[in-house]
Amino acid sequence: MEFHEAVKTRRSVRTFKPDEPDPEAMARVLEAVRLSPSGSNRQPWKFVLVRDSEKKAEVVAACGGQAWIAEAPIVVVACGHKIGYNRGGYMGDMSFLVDVSIAFTQFIIAARAEGLGTCWIGDFENEAVKVALGVPEGYDVVAVSPLGYPKTEKAFHETDRRKPLSEIVSHEKF
Amino acid sequence: MEFHEAVKTRRSVRTFKPDEPDPEAMARVLEAVRLSPSGSNRQPWKFVLVRDSEKKAEVVAACGGQAWIAEAPIVVVACGHKIGYNRGGYMGDMSFLVDVSIAFTQFIIAARAEGLGTCWIGDFENEAVKVALGVPEGYDVVAVSPLGYPKTEKAFHETDRRKPLSEIVSHEKF
Repeated sequence: MEFHEAVKTRRSVRTFKPDEPDPEAMARVLEAVRLSPSGSNRQPWKFVLVRDSEKKAEVVAACGGQAWIAEAPIVVVACGHKIGYNRGGYMGDMSFLVDVSIAFTQFIIAARAEGLGTCWIGDFENEAVKVALGVPEGYDVVAVSPLGYPKTEKAFHETDRRKPLSEIVSHEKF
Repeated sequence: MEFHEAVKTRRSVRTFKPDEPDPEAMARVLEAVRLSPSGSNRQPWKFVLVRDSEKKAEVVAACGGQAWIAEAPIVVVACGHKIGYNRGGYMGDMSFLVDVSIAFTQFIIAARAEGLGTCWIGDFENEAVKVALGVPEGYDVVAVSPLGYPKTEKAFHETDRRKPLSEIVSHEKF
């Protein structure tokens, strides 16, 4: 799919068919994750794909019990390794949030390009997800998303609730 | 451009023609920024486009003196508003790094899709850039990038220095 079309029609999807993603589509989505840029090319990410229903229930419980997440055939959990240089001279060991967010952004756009729905979840308990998936010391969870085909293609309608360009772009000065 | 083609051929570009980006291409790039998703749709970003050579020199000085950045006709500085919920229960007021990184990722892929080069710079001094551009309290700089046409199309060669999928994806557990 054309990049701008994917960006324009990507929405948070919260209702899914049970069908497993097409394997070739899935391979392209994971390749988009793999190719993501990162600071000093450290690639400090690990994506855990959860299909087991008991395991999904544990992740959902750690996401404030948002039960709809488990409707998707896969729940994707992006973990980040807390390494990296001190971006901007102030981010310290939170710099990995930038790198993993790049990979997760490539993931959600790639999924849209394949007709797959995602929903970037930020409301999760890091420690609880770590226990559920055996995430080791030195790693933290950055994002969670369901992944699957939306119940209707209408899920992909154009975004209309964004600030005008004049509020988010300026010239020469802030 | 097809999304996967853009992702596969996006590279850090460090040498630029002086030409200003095509206005329609630029409009599409900024639209991709504008449409980015964010936590609770807060859109906590502001992109400052710097073309003035004295102002560019100030930004370059704040990027450890990486003089090549100023070769590009535009230097883009992405600022983030430190608002937002506490993602993952641990990110606190650093949660905005995730949102602005989403928008900056859409920016770099959109630029590539238009034949424009970028280079995500993390080595900058936040406070110095803030002074140069008059960035107010409550905002921090998340990323800097030159933007312009690369000197040669060869700048867009496929990425080959990435970890294999087996190291970055796992199933059911970390």
